[in-house]
Amino acid sequence: MKKQALLLIADGMGDLPNPQLDGKTPLEYAHTPHLTYLASQGLFGNVHPVQAGVPVGTDVGHLAIFGYDPYEVYTGRGPIEAYGAEIDMLPGDIAFRGNFATVDDEFIVLDRRAERINVGTHDLAEAVDGIRLSNGTQVIARALSAHRVAVVLRGDGLSEKVTTSDPGTAKEGCKVVHSTPLDDSIDAQVTAQLINELSEKFYSILSLHPVNSARRQNKQAPANMILLRGIGKEIQAPKVTEKYGITGACIAGDRTVLGIARMSGLDTFHQPSFTAGFDTDFLGKAKVAVEKLKQGYDWVVLHVKAPDLAGHDDLPYVKVEMAEKFDQMVGFIMEHIDLNNCYIGYTSDHSTPCIRRDHSGDPVPTFFAGTDVRKTELHGFGEKYLNHGALNNLTGREFFFTQMDYLGVVPKLGA
Amino acid sequence: MKKQALLLIADGMGDLPNPQLDGKTPLEYAHTPHLTYLASQGLFGNVHPVQAGVPVGTDVGHLAIFGYDPYEVYTGRGPIEAYGAEIDMLPGDIAFRGNFATVDDEFIVLDRRAERINVGTHDLAEAVDGIRLSNGTQVIARALSAHRVAVVLRGDGLSEKVTTSDPGTAKEGCKVVHSTPLDDSIDAQVTAQLINELSEKFYSILSLHPVNSARRQNKQAPANMILLRGIGKEIQAPKVTEKYGITGACIAGDRTVLGIARMSGLDTFHQPSFTAGFDTDFLGKAKVAVEKLKQGYDWVVLHVKAPDLAGHDDLPYVKVEMAEKFDQMVGFIMEHIDLNNCYIGYTSDHSTPCIRRDHSGDPVPTFFAGTDVRKTELHGFGEKYLNHGALNNLTGREFFFTQMDYLGVVPKLGA
Repeated sequence: MKKQALLLIADGMGDLPNPQLDGKTPLEYAHTPHLTYLASQGLFGNVHPVQAGVPVGTDVGHLAIFGYDPYEVYTGRGPIEAYGAEIDMLPGDIAFRGNFATVDDEFIVLDRRAERINVGTHDLAEAVDGIRLSNGTQVIARALSAHRVAVVLRGDGLSEKVTTSDPGTAKEGCKVVHSTPLDDSIDAQVTAQLINELSEKFYSILSLHPVNSARRQNKQAPANMILLRGIGKEIQAPKVTEKYGITGACIAGDRTVLGIARMSGLDTFHQPSFTAGFDTDFLGKAKVAVEKLKQGYDWVVLHVKAPDLAGHDDLPYVKVEMAEKFDQMVGFIMEHIDLNNCYIGYTSDHSTPCIRRDHSGDPVPTFFAGTDVRKTELHGFGEKYLNHGALNNLTGREFFFTQMDYLGVVPKLGA
Repeated sequence: MKKQALLLIADGMGDLPNPQLDGKTPLEYAHTPHLTYLASQGLFGNVHPVQAGVPVGTDVGHLAIFGYDPYEVYTGRGPIEAYGAEIDMLPGDIAFRGNFATVDDEFIVLDRRAERINVGTHDLAEAVDGIRLSNGTQVIARALSAHRVAVVLRGDGLSEKVTTSDPGTAKEGCKVVHSTPLDDSIDAQVTAQLINELSEKFYSILSLHPVNSARRQNKQAPANMILLRGIGKEIQAPKVTEKYGITGACIAGDRTVLGIARMSGLDTFHQPSFTAGFDTDFLGKAKVAVEKLKQGYDWVVLHVKAPDLAGHDDLPYVKVEMAEKFDQMVGFIMEHIDLNNCYIGYTSDHSTPCIRRDHSGDPVPTFFAGTDVRKTELHGFGEKYLNHGALNNLTGREFFFTQMDYLGVVPKLGA
């Protein structure tokens, strides 16, 4: 019988000894009988998302989990956002992270997030989606959550070697940046002109839009500009599903993760109850994962964002609670699948220690369980219990290869 | 409160089971309660200076400890010696390790070290420092310990692709080598001519020097030549202090280590009692380290050369004694700093097993302690006790990144 594998991702779950938890990490403190059992049924260790001591973002951490070398394929956040917005990028496209913003008629930025606008953004994005710039370059725009919007330019001779229009996080009162080329190429010169033309177009189209007329009447700042940053070219990497000849499914609420999964060739499954928040529907995700395995997907990836949020907000007890809910979700899954036929893996994209309130370069607890997987004795689950395991100090990519090898799809090197 | 970190380096401390020590290594045999305690308070493991199974020199081992990739930046020993001699190298400079030597009037080498001259060498170096060669190239020379001298050439079109003048370690009776180009470039041809011109100049200037007149009267061999080897270009690598935005201090007696620390952007602190020998002033170094931490340096590095010497001389009991003195020094430091605010790391640049009397490729006992660092149970200190730790099989550079990440200065990869 063909083997399948399920990979569970607890975003940002890795942590450090916490004074509120008797010097334990949330994972060491939490009651996680199912995770503990599974770790005892296979390989385990603390795995470096990319490199020891190097903190990574959610995007880069997931690129590694999905088998990519981020140093090779990561070109900036823009393309990741575009994939998350379900824009299919083509070779030559350049992509940006965008913010709906408020500017005055001299392009002074009054509010980088247009008062965190979260109504009407789909209409606003639609108004600029599909417009053409003077040389025929096409603009693609898709609203994301709140004030966020993905923007892609499609045309000949586009370059990512230009400055972008967003004056930066802490700079209300600055002007929309006039884009300039960063190298001597014609492409960069032309692209910079296009970005400047685009800022003018955004302003003229959005200023007159009914959504903004209504906002002005309600004394709300109009979203009359899209500030662009995170420029990057289309990511030219083969889809892992094609490379390994497998089918894949990703169940998640977080758009960045869904975007990278999509880029990797996985089918993505999302429901409104998958909120990417503390209130996310653990059991709902588990049910979809079991269903996708029963449908025959080779590799099913289930992602939960909540532990990362608890780390950023320095809420160690909430992180413990999220670990325990995660464990209960795993318990449900174990009742519905057969470990003889389906491996279960577990990892994180990075550590988000509560005391740091940010990502750190610490490696992440990881395991890969299955009846025919090598096993090592262990005495608990969490950071300190896993150092002596077979996966310790491997990288996220090496963990990916390990999973694919157990599925029997990694080509033999040599003969 | 801003965190600080102290890194303790026991040069060459890593070792192998020794028959004189009941089959234990010096570190396993020694009584080291403070090192043992600190290892229990953080990450530990046996760390590869550069790569498993590859023995490295003090220079390369320290480049890795200071965060550099030796395969990328190491251009030869000459530049390292120049930094140790406090010569500020400029782009285009080439540097050499030099020996004061004795030659006859046909340039036959009579003594490669001029009877290990150790008096008057500063005067001799000064006599050739600042001279100009025929095309205007400037000579910079600084006496180092005993017969050693750092030499730098500064001018246009210098190449390191040439043979150097030293006929080698075991070759008394050979001639000073006539430098020849190693590639077809004009620069290499010109540089070879300059080196040959320099040998003539060294001989003519040094032969007549009052230091050598006095030596001849005392029946001592004159130091009438400087033999050059270890040629390398200026190391073009950013200072780690600038790259990570930190301040650093290095306390050491060994000139090579001081040179690499200086190259890395650290302020260096040296006293005559820091002898780089068995009699070095452990407590004096500890006091300076504590002082530099109190002055607010982010990263303080304390280096002790003695264990390496014991390894080279096959003196396992002396190595045990050095380990115990090192441990007492650590005890003093622990009484004067607060582990809540200051991490304490420990490592070596390489192993120098007594039974090998030379460096080996074995990984080195290493730890990184602090109240908020992940911990793992351990049962003793020394090579055999550390294999199950979180740092095991990482590299020296990865250990550097780990320290910097705990200081919060490693930029996040991705978003």
